[in-house]
Amino acid sequence: MARERLSLYDTTLRDGAQTHGVDFSLEDKWLIAEQLDALGLDYVEAGYPGANPTDTKLFGEPRALNAKSTAFGMTKRPGRSISNDPGFQALLAANADAVCLVGKTWDFHVDVALGITPEENVSGIKESVEAVVASGREALLDCEHFFDGYKANPAYALECAKAGYEAGARWVVLCDTNGGSLPEEVETIVAEVVKHIPGDHVGIHVHNDTDNGVANSLAAVRAGARQIQGTLNGLGERCGNANLTSIIPTLMLKPGYAERFETGVTPDKLRTLTHASRVLDEILNRAPNRHAPYVGESAFAHKGGIHVSAVQKDPRTYEHVPPESVGNVRKLLVSDQGGRSNIMAQLDRIGIAVPKDDPRVTRLLNTVKEHEAAGYAYEAAEASFELLARRMLGNVPQFFDVDSFRVMVERRHNALGELVTISEATVKARIDGDTVMSVGEGNGPVNALDNALRKDLGPYQSYIDDLELVDYKVRILTGGTDAVTRVLIESRDGEGNRWFTVGVSPNIVDASFEALLDSINYKLIRDGAPAPGA
Amino acid sequence: MARERLSLYDTTLRDGAQTHGVDFSLEDKWLIAEQLDALGLDYVEAGYPGANPTDTKLFGEPRALNAKSTAFGMTKRPGRSISNDPGFQALLAANADAVCLVGKTWDFHVDVALGITPEENVSGIKESVEAVVASGREALLDCEHFFDGYKANPAYALECAKAGYEAGARWVVLCDTNGGSLPEEVETIVAEVVKHIPGDHVGIHVHNDTDNGVANSLAAVRAGARQIQGTLNGLGERCGNANLTSIIPTLMLKPGYAERFETGVTPDKLRTLTHASRVLDEILNRAPNRHAPYVGESAFAHKGGIHVSAVQKDPRTYEHVPPESVGNVRKLLVSDQGGRSNIMAQLDRIGIAVPKDDPRVTRLLNTVKEHEAAGYAYEAAEASFELLARRMLGNVPQFFDVDSFRVMVERRHNALGELVTISEATVKARIDGDTVMSVGEGNGPVNALDNALRKDLGPYQSYIDDLELVDYKVRILTGGTDAVTRVLIESRDGEGNRWFTVGVSPNIVDASFEALLDSINYKLIRDGAPAPGA
Repeated sequence: MARERLSLYDTTLRDGAQTHGVDFSLEDKWLIAEQLDALGLDYVEAGYPGANPTDTKLFGEPRALNAKSTAFGMTKRPGRSISNDPGFQALLAANADAVCLVGKTWDFHVDVALGITPEENVSGIKESVEAVVASGREALLDCEHFFDGYKANPAYALECAKAGYEAGARWVVLCDTNGGSLPEEVETIVAEVVKHIPGDHVGIHVHNDTDNGVANSLAAVRAGARQIQGTLNGLGERCGNANLTSIIPTLMLKPGYAERFETGVTPDKLRTLTHASRVLDEILNRAPNRHAPYVGESAFAHKGGIHVSAVQKDPRTYEHVPPESVGNVRKLLVSDQGGRSNIMAQLDRIGIAVPKDDPRVTRLLNTVKEHEAAGYAYEAAEASFELLARRMLGNVPQFFDVDSFRVMVERRHNALGELVTISEATVKARIDGDTVMSVGEGNGPVNALDNALRKDLGPYQSYIDDLELVDYKVRILTGGTDAVTRVLIESRDGEGNRWFTVGVSPNIVDASFEALLDSINYKLIRDGAPAPGA
Repeated sequence: MARERLSLYDTTLRDGAQTHGVDFSLEDKWLIAEQLDALGLDYVEAGYPGANPTDTKLFGEPRALNAKSTAFGMTKRPGRSISNDPGFQALLAANADAVCLVGKTWDFHVDVALGITPEENVSGIKESVEAVVASGREALLDCEHFFDGYKANPAYALECAKAGYEAGARWVVLCDTNGGSLPEEVETIVAEVVKHIPGDHVGIHVHNDTDNGVANSLAAVRAGARQIQGTLNGLGERCGNANLTSIIPTLMLKPGYAERFETGVTPDKLRTLTHASRVLDEILNRAPNRHAPYVGESAFAHKGGIHVSAVQKDPRTYEHVPPESVGNVRKLLVSDQGGRSNIMAQLDRIGIAVPKDDPRVTRLLNTVKEHEAAGYAYEAAEASFELLARRMLGNVPQFFDVDSFRVMVERRHNALGELVTISEATVKARIDGDTVMSVGEGNGPVNALDNALRKDLGPYQSYIDDLELVDYKVRILTGGTDAVTRVLIESRDGEGNRWFTVGVSPNIVDASFEALLDSINYKLIRDGAPAPGA
C-alpha cells in the first residue's frame, strides 16, 4: 500500500521568534531557512510582514527555497474592509508562496478579546481567506484556540474552521494556542473535525504547556490530520511549540508511522537533523540542550558499566534507534560506575588504538578512578580525560612549565572615594629554555591569571590566540575542613570547537589554574603544536 | 464517586543521579529528599546501597520522612544464592522502608546481556522478591525493558511481571528502559497487563527518548496503572525520566484526571512545586529551564501586546491553568501584578506583616527586580531576600562596616622544593567606633577572607562563633566581557539551622564577600544581636 504524505510546516522563524530572548536578524533568518529547506520541510513560515522591519524586508527580497515560503498574518480587522486594512494589505504585498492567516474560533475570545459578534468573526475569516486565494497565493488558516473553543462550543469552532475551508484554504490548522490540551482530547476532537473537513486539508499546531507538544501532534496524525506545524528545537513562547526535531524522527523511524506515512524528509536528510538543531543553537548563541531527544549530546550516552558492556554487545540493548540515523553519535561515558569497557570505548572514540589487556589501560583506569574519588569529573570534562589518556599512553610533549604565580585582589576606596576592586596576577613560566614573566589584570583572580598566562607563551602564542574561555563552573565537593573545589571550564576556539577541562584542589585558584592549563595543552595537542626545540 | 488513589514514586536521587554531570553529595540528597517529602510524594527512591559510598552511608543513617524511603538494587546475581550475593545482601542491610528491585523481562536481554535461560531469570525474580518480603520490607519490582520485551515476546514479559507480583511485590512497575515506546503502544500494552495483574499493583516508569515521557505516563494511567515513577525536572540519563514536575499538575488540574484521581499532593503542596523545581536546579548548580511546563520562568509569560491586554481582561484567554496553582507567577511586560503578589507571599512566609498597598512594598519589588535583572537569585537565597526586605521595610542595624580588604594567592616552591599555594587575606572594619584590622589564612581566597572577617567582630563575635560555611556555588551568568559571577553560600550554625545567601559581581571575590556579609548579618539579626552602642 502506498504511504500517505504528511506535510511538515515550520514556524521557527515566526512563532519561534516569540521566545524570550530570541531576536533573529535578517541573515539569521535566511541561514535557518536554508537549514530547514535542506531538511526537506514543505513550508517555511518566515515571518509576519508589516509587524516589524526585518520581516517586511525579508518578504521584499525573497530567495529561492524548495519549501513554500509562507507569510503569517491576521485575518482582517473587524469593522474594516480588506482594502481599508493596512495590516492585511502588507500581507497581500508580501512576496511569498503561501499566506497563513490566524483567525479566532473560540466564542469566548471573539466576545472578550475582539468584542464582536460570532457572525462577524465568521465572515471576517471567509473574506480574508478569499482575498488571499484571489491574490494567487496558497491560503492556510490557523484556527486560534481551536481546542479550547471546541470544548466550549463545538458547533461554533467547527463553523469557523469550515468557513476557512470553504473559502478555499488549502489547510485548516487546528491550534492549541494555550497549550493546555492533552493527547486524548486532541485525538477525539481531530477525529470529529475530519468528519467535516477532509483530513488531508487538516493541520495541527500545538504548544508544549503540559509537556505533551509532541504527543498531541502525533495524536492528531493518528486521528487523521495530515499537516504538522512546529519549530526546530521546540522554540516558541512560554513552554515552546511542538518540537519538530523530536516529531520528524518519530514519524520516520517508529512503527505505526514509518510504514504508513512519508514526508519530504528522506533518510539522507534525516541524518542532517542533529546538525540543523545545533546550528540553530549556535545562531541563538546558547548551549544546546544536552538531553534533547534524538539530537542531544546525551541522547545516546551510556554511563553505568553494565549498560556500556551490553551496548557494546548489541546497541539495541539500550538504544531505541541507531544514533547515526539522526546524525548523532553514541557516547560511552567515563565515570566511577564504568569500568574497563567504558575506558576502551572512550579511547576508541578519541582515536587511540591500544589492546584491551595493555597494562597501561589498567594504569589509566586506576588513575581515572583515583582522580574521580578525589573529585575530578571526567564525564563532563572530556578534554581533560583525553589529555590524561594521551599522557599515560602516548607521547604528549611538555610544552611549557609554570614555576610560580601570584594573584592579588584588593578592595579599597580610590582617590575619588569610590569603592573599587582590582585583580592582578603574575606568572613565571619556562618555555623552551627561556624564563618568561607576565602580568595581567582581570575582573577577578581567575580572569587575571588567565590573562597573565596567555600573554606570552612564546612559540605557542599563535596557537592560543583564538582560545576563549566561555564558561566557568565551581563546585565545593565536601563540607567542612576537607572541602575540595572542582572547577569546570568550557573553552572555544575560532572555528567553533568547544571543549571542557577540569581542575580540583582545596584552593579555587589552584583548581582554576589546573583547568586553564589543561585547556591550553589540549588546544596545543589538537592543533599539532611541535614539542619544544622540535 | 470516590476518587482513586494514584501512587507517586520519585527516583530523582537514583535514576536522576545517572544524569550526565550530576553528582549528589550526601547533604544534597537529604536536602532534595526533604523537598520531595514536603511535596507529598509517596516514595522517595534515595539511592543504590552498595553501589557507591554515598548511597551506602545514606541508608546507614536514615532520617525521618513521611514518604517511604526506598532502596534500589538488582535482583540476585544469576548462578548465586541470595546468601552468597554480596550486592543483594547490601540491599537487604539497607535501612529503608521499601526495596525496589530491577529485573529483566525482555528475552533478548536475558540471552544477550545476562546469558542465562529464561527460566533461571524468572526464578531469580521470584527468589529476590521473596527475600525482600521476608526481610519485612515492602517490595517493588521494576520490570526492565518491559515494553520492548512485550513487543518481542508478550508471554515471557508477562510471566516475569507475574512472577514478581505472585512473589509478593506491592508494585510491579513496567519500565520503558530505552525510552522508545509511544503513547498508543504504552496504552495498549498496559491495558493487557492489568487483565493479569490488578491495576492498583501496576506502576509505570518511562524515559523521554521520543519526547513522550509525560504522555506515556499518562497513557499508562488511562489504561489502568496506578503508580507513576519519575523525577523532578525530568532528570535522568540520556533524555531524562518522566518529568513529575509536569505530570503532577496535569493529574491535579486537568479534566479527565482531576475528578478521577487523588494523590498525596494537596493543592497547598502543589503550590510548592515551582520552588521545589528551582531548588533542585540550584543544588545542581545549573540554570533552571526557563521554558519548563508549569514551573518555568516563561511558562506564564506573555509577550505580545494583544496577549497581554487579553490576559488582563481574563487570564483564561492565554493561560491553560492559573500560575499560582503551581506556585508560579504570571509575567506581563507591562504590569507588576505577578511580582507584587509574589513578594507579598514571600513576606508572609518570613513573618513580615505589611499592607499590600504600602509604598515600601513597591520599592522592595522594584529593588528585587533590579537585582534579579543584574543576576541575583533570591529564589535560592532566602536569607539574602529576608535581609533585603527587613532593611527596606524595617529597622536593620548597621552592625559593622568593612572599609577595605586584600586577598593574595601565591603558588611557589617552598624551601623544601615542594610546590605550595598559600592564601592570605586582610580586612579593615569599623565596629562601634573602633577600627579593627584582621588577617587570616585559608585554603583559598574566599576561605582566607572568611577567616579574616570572622577573626574579630568585637561585641558580635560570640554570635558568629558557631557559624560555618558549608557550601559554596559559583555560576557565570553571561559569557564574554559582560560576564557576571553569582555566588551562592550555604551557612549553618550550631543548632543545625541552614540558610543561603547570594552575591553578584564581575569579580568572584567581591561576589563571595557580599554573600559572606549577608550570611553574618542574617545570623546577627536572627539571633537578636543589639545595634552598635545599644
